[in-house]
Amino acid sequence: MNNPVPLAELWRGDILESTHFGHAVICDGAGQIVQAWGDPDAIIYPRSSAKMIQALPLIESGAADAVGLGTEQLALACASHQGEHQHTDRVAAWLDAIGMGESDLRCGVQVPNDPAVRQELRETNACACQLHNNCSGKHTGFLTLNRHLGGHSEYVEADHPVQLACRDAFEGVTGMESPGYGIDGCSAPNFATSVHGLARAMGSFASAHTRSDTRSRAQARLTDAMIAHPNLIAGTGRACTELMGAMKGRAAIKTGAEAVFVAILPEQQLGIALKVIDGGTRGSECAIAALLVKLGLLEADHPAVLNRMNKVQKNWRGLETGILRPAADLL
Amino acid sequence: MNNPVPLAELWRGDILESTHFGHAVICDGAGQIVQAWGDPDAIIYPRSSAKMIQALPLIESGAADAVGLGTEQLALACASHQGEHQHTDRVAAWLDAIGMGESDLRCGVQVPNDPAVRQELRETNACACQLHNNCSGKHTGFLTLNRHLGGHSEYVEADHPVQLACRDAFEGVTGMESPGYGIDGCSAPNFATSVHGLARAMGSFASAHTRSDTRSRAQARLTDAMIAHPNLIAGTGRACTELMGAMKGRAAIKTGAEAVFVAILPEQQLGIALKVIDGGTRGSECAIAALLVKLGLLEADHPAVLNRMNKVQKNWRGLETGILRPAADLL
Repeated sequence: MNNPVPLAELWRGDILESTHFGHAVICDGAGQIVQAWGDPDAIIYPRSSAKMIQALPLIESGAADAVGLGTEQLALACASHQGEHQHTDRVAAWLDAIGMGESDLRCGVQVPNDPAVRQELRETNACACQLHNNCSGKHTGFLTLNRHLGGHSEYVEADHPVQLACRDAFEGVTGMESPGYGIDGCSAPNFATSVHGLARAMGSFASAHTRSDTRSRAQARLTDAMIAHPNLIAGTGRACTELMGAMKGRAAIKTGAEAVFVAILPEQQLGIALKVIDGGTRGSECAIAALLVKLGLLEADHPAVLNRMNKVQKNWRGLETGILRPAADLL
Repeated sequence: MNNPVPLAELWRGDILESTHFGHAVICDGAGQIVQAWGDPDAIIYPRSSAKMIQALPLIESGAADAVGLGTEQLALACASHQGEHQHTDRVAAWLDAIGMGESDLRCGVQVPNDPAVRQELRETNACACQLHNNCSGKHTGFLTLNRHLGGHSEYVEADHPVQLACRDAFEGVTGMESPGYGIDGCSAPNFATSVHGLARAMGSFASAHTRSDTRSRAQARLTDAMIAHPNLIAGTGRACTELMGAMKGRAAIKTGAEAVFVAILPEQQLGIALKVIDGGTRGSECAIAALLVKLGLLEADHPAVLNRMNKVQKNWRGLETGILRPAADLL
C-alpha cells in the first residue's frame, strides 16, 4: 500500500499554499497498469463516474432497444447534468415515452446547478423538481430497465433487480468484488472499488470496439453516446463538457462527487481513474486535465485546459495572486 | 519535518470516502508546543486568521484611541464578515467618522456571502460594493492607521508604512521572520509563517492579560473585542460566530481562507493554529471544533458543534448517507 501523492498544487506568490493529494491509475484494455501514482489498491467510491457502468444493464438487457433509445438518452443515462432545459426537456420526453413521469423517479429534488435555470425558477416562482436532479437521466435509465424487468417501484433499493444488475456489471468491468456500497446523493447504491478497479473498467470501455460480445458492444455504444453529446454529459461551462469539447470526439470523461475523475480513450485503448482524497473538485479537474495533456489528447494552451490545469488565481480587484497547477510528478 | 496527518474524515456507509490531512499545534503562553499533529514547522499562509495580528498597529500606534474606536470597530477590524447590514452599516459609519468613504478602500468589490443580502441586492437592482468585502473592517482599520501615520493612499502596497507595521507586529508575535508574503484576496500582503509560529502568536494573545506592556494590552483589547461581538466576526450561521456563541465568551476563534483556523483561549492561556493542507473548509471547521471539545470549551452535543464536528450527511431525499467526523488522533 502506497501513500497518496500530490496531484495538484495551489501556489500564492512563491509559496505553496494548498496541496491536493490522491491516487491515479492509467490502465490498458486488458486491465494492466500502464502508470500509477499513489496507491492503485486504495478503495474509493466512484460516485457519478460509474454512471456508464450503471447504464450497461439498460443496454445488455434489451431494455434500451425495446423502447428505441438513441444516443441522446444513452448520454443522459451517463450524465451528471446541471438541469438546463436541454437536459430536463429530454429527460421529461424520455419519461413520457416509457409511460412514466417525474413522480416515478427516486433521485430526489435538487436545485439545479445552472445559474440561469435557478434564476428562471426564482423569477417564475417555480420549484425545482426531480427532473433537475443531476442524476435524472441515470434514474430514467433505471426506470426503463425496471419496466423491462417488471420490478417493483422502489428501484433504488440495494436488493432490487435493477441494482443487482448494476452490481453485477460493476464487478464484471472492475474485475473485482466490490467491498461494499454506500447510499449515493441520488439514493441509489454506489459500489466501492479500487482506483485500479475503476481504471480497469475504463480500459475495458476504451477497448470495447475491438471485441464483439454483448457487454463490449454495450460499452462501445455508451462511449460513443457520451462522445457524441458533451453538452448532455454535464452542461455549459462544466469540466466534462468543456474538456470533451476540446478533445473533439477523442475521449469520453466523467467526474464523480468527492473529486473522482475517469477517462475512456478509445484511440489509445487506455482508461484513467483518479481520486483526490480530500474531495476537492478543483484538484481532480486539474489532475485529469494534466493527464489528458500528457497523453496528447488536449492542448495545454486550450482555454478549457488553462481554466483548470494552470488556472491563474485572481482576487477581488483582479490582481493575480497565484496559480493552481498539477504536481510535477503528474507530467 | 513530519508529514501531514488526517484531521477530518468523511464516511459514506462503512467506507472512508474522503480525508482531510493537515497540521495542528496547541501552544502555551510562552510559545511552547503543548501538543502537535503533523508538522509544526510547515509553512502556511494564515490568510484571514491573522487579522487580529494585522490590527495590532492600529492600537499600538495610538490611532484607535485618537478616533475613539470601541469594541465594535475593533471586532470588525478582526472580522471576515459576510456583508450583512450589521457589518456594512457599522463599517460605513466608521469610515464616515474618520472622514473617508467606500472609494478609499482597496479591498475590492465582493458579492456578499450572506444569501439574504444577495437577494436584497438583486431585488433592488443594487450593486455590491467594497463595504460588502469580507475584509472591509480590516481595511477601515488600515485607513484609520494610515490617517494617523500620514501615509499615501495605496495602503496595501507591501512597502507602505501600514504594511511595514503589520509585518513588524506579525514577526513579533509569531516569534520568527516571515519567509515571504503573497497577495491576499483583499489585495493586502499576507505574511507566511509556520503553524507553530501562528499558534505561538495565538498563545501570546491568550496570555496577554497576564502582561502589561503596550503590545500585550493591545492583544487583550482585541481578544476581548472579538469575544464581545461574535456576530461581527463572521455572521449568521457561520462557524466562527456560532462556535464562539456556543463557548459563551470563553474563547476567540477565527478562520482563514484555504482552511486555516486559530483559537485564543484566555482561561487556559493556550493558542491553537491548524491548516488543512487541501484548503477544504469543512475539514478545518471539523478539526477546530474537535480541539475545542477536547479542551473542554465546547459541548460535543451542542448544535453548532454537531453541525461541524460530527455532521450527518444527507442526500437529496433526506436519507442519511454518512458522517463527517474528526480523525481519531485528534480526540
